[in-house]
Amino acid sequence: MAAYPPTPQTTPTRYRERARYDRQTVHRILDESLVCHLGYVHDGRPVVLPTTHARVDDTLYIHGSTGSGPMLAARLSGLPVCVTVTLVDALVLARSAMHHSLNYRSVVALGTARVVDDPAEKARAFNALLDHIWLGRAADCRPPNARELAATAVLALNLVEVSAKVRDGGVADDTEDLDLPHWAGVVPLTLTPGTPIPDRNVEVPLPAYLR
Amino acid sequence: MAAYPPTPQTTPTRYRERARYDRQTVHRILDESLVCHLGYVHDGRPVVLPTTHARVDDTLYIHGSTGSGPMLAARLSGLPVCVTVTLVDALVLARSAMHHSLNYRSVVALGTARVVDDPAEKARAFNALLDHIWLGRAADCRPPNARELAATAVLALNLVEVSAKVRDGGVADDTEDLDLPHWAGVVPLTLTPGTPIPDRNVEVPLPAYLR
Repeated sequence: MAAYPPTPQTTPTRYRERARYDRQTVHRILDESLVCHLGYVHDGRPVVLPTTHARVDDTLYIHGSTGSGPMLAARLSGLPVCVTVTLVDALVLARSAMHHSLNYRSVVALGTARVVDDPAEKARAFNALLDHIWLGRAADCRPPNARELAATAVLALNLVEVSAKVRDGGVADDTEDLDLPHWAGVVPLTLTPGTPIPDRNVEVPLPAYLR
Repeated sequence: MAAYPPTPQTTPTRYRERARYDRQTVHRILDESLVCHLGYVHDGRPVVLPTTHARVDDTLYIHGSTGSGPMLAARLSGLPVCVTVTLVDALVLARSAMHHSLNYRSVVALGTARVVDDPAEKARAFNALLDHIWLGRAADCRPPNARELAATAVLALNLVEVSAKVRDGGVADDTEDLDLPHWAGVVPLTLTPGTPIPDRNVEVPLPAYLR
């Protein structure tokens, strides 16, 4: 589990102490994020679309549809992409306006994405995408048929040029501000799954992996 | 409150019924999202960075730092950007692999961002960014001094070419799959603020707006 080597693109211009390159940190953030933001260039202009993703070892799979712009472009010769995920962990309320912040963990992955054509790899990618939504679902649903497989496309990005950025801890006010009469502190944020709501006519009991 | 006019770029190629152009829907999603993903083109390649934002009427303000790549580029002649925010509301677990999905609300805003230079507008933008983190903070902290103002940059994007996309409701399995022996339903997700944790030496009581 060596670290990803930093490159000029993955070295932040500010807050360099927040950068992380170790695989464990990068992988955990990617695995915990439910959505990614897929950036690519179309007619010279930036496009950023939210979609779902899943990581298998050092490959990031990105969900798409066969006829969409990025998929058509990627089919030709690969698509230069920037895939970014962000988890917000807390609000940081400082005594000074300047030091208001968020605690967050983000990953930026750069590279050229390819369309997954090999049927075995595509099946593995689908299973990973399903289990990324909720672990256990890939084994507990009807697999895609030929028509569904043809309609869905998956991009793959090798994790090579990738970095994480982490802001954690408390308020970072300057010393001369510490006595100001403003409340300062951190408000933690938690993304919580609620009680599963069954679809109409579901007679199967709630599976153990959802309890 | 007329709707934003759709353009080819803001008309989805799939799931067109999920597109929304009314200002109320677009504004609510922008206002509820804690972070945005700012996409721009650097040396012909896409870059997507998470940052904070705030909306004032039909202007989206985006937080940055003076020396950063996008700010330097924007200073020349404006920066073509795509700003995307995404809220995830639920996991949608279907009987078929194909119909697994997320309930989400996203906004994509396209255009050319400018650097905010006017001091009065910059002050308004800062206040909006602070109140976006938690309503009430702009009036309850030390305002930025000249050095801090100079170090922080704000981009402004006029909301003109903008659309929302909303997936809500339940499972959308095909009729022939409804009797399959797989549990199907929706798992709601909620982002919940926890108990505020005061910084060391804070003697000010917790303000009413945080209770």
